[in-house]
Amino acid sequence: MDLKRINALIRDIPDFPKPGILFKDIFPLFQDPIAVEMVITHIVNHINTSFDKKIDVIVGLDARGFLFGPIIAMRLGAAFAPVRKAGKLPGTTIQVAYEKEYGTDLFEMQCDSIKPGQNVIVIDDLIATGGSARGAQELIEKMRGNVLSFIFLIELEFLKGKDILKAPVYSMIKA
Amino acid sequence: MDLKRINALIRDIPDFPKPGILFKDIFPLFQDPIAVEMVITHIVNHINTSFDKKIDVIVGLDARGFLFGPIIAMRLGAAFAPVRKAGKLPGTTIQVAYEKEYGTDLFEMQCDSIKPGQNVIVIDDLIATGGSARGAQELIEKMRGNVLSFIFLIELEFLKGKDILKAPVYSMIKA
Repeated sequence: MDLKRINALIRDIPDFPKPGILFKDIFPLFQDPIAVEMVITHIVNHINTSFDKKIDVIVGLDARGFLFGPIIAMRLGAAFAPVRKAGKLPGTTIQVAYEKEYGTDLFEMQCDSIKPGQNVIVIDDLIATGGSARGAQELIEKMRGNVLSFIFLIELEFLKGKDILKAPVYSMIKA
Repeated sequence: MDLKRINALIRDIPDFPKPGILFKDIFPLFQDPIAVEMVITHIVNHINTSFDKKIDVIVGLDARGFLFGPIIAMRLGAAFAPVRKAGKLPGTTIQVAYEKEYGTDLFEMQCDSIKPGQNVIVIDDLIATGGSARGAQELIEKMRGNVLSFIFLIELEFLKGKDILKAPVYSMIKA
């Protein structure tokens, strides 16, 4: 895995969205389709070699989790289910409040998006304090899904986000 | 192309997000990975047989355009570039105001996401009044990209959104 190529396509933007935050911009990665393919293949291979259970649902967080989630779900033959901020998803939904790196908010999922007992992996571009991943976990647990793992492209290790999650975390890049 | 299978996975939700709007919910489609594969294959095949130019960039609109855009870009060997609401994208950006079906807003792209002369296709899940697609078109024109086409999963024909766009529109499903 050519992590140097991937790392070179993640751009540090100081003071975004607020002063003191060093933002990891993943969009330069999407200018290089081969690099995107490498990331997807790496994550799918990680999943296929790490779990002896069928993965039923990939859950992706709005909006950058939508960039990776559906591709990975298709390769696994799994469903893709979104987590969005309150008011964005139609139909019957469930809500949780979650802590963000810079504030609090409400997350929602559609009630029929996970069935009891399904095996679920949560995917997002980045884990910081872990608040949004924990919100996703709580939503999935409310629907009685099993969260097998959380997968991130980037982990900000110094924020220890994985400590508040109940399932193993795999991240391609530690920053 | 088994359009019946796709159509059956698009759910009509009345009065969302406002009274009088019949919302087309595409997330049930993502519960069926084979149906997603059919949609992606159909769109990629349409692109490959419709243009004799290399497609350089697929532009996807936040957030549901992110579900399709990166997969299609990868299959074409093209870059993927996002359009997001103002304040969401880091780095140097350009802005336009656009008209929505229910209000107005500001759209942004990153300045380095399209180079002058590049061939661009804009992808979103649905065209209603065409305001957001037109906003994307204006952003791409500001960066001197060539918009070859707009592609949508669903077109609400009665709203005549394609009339305000300068490039051909292809939609899989007319509603």
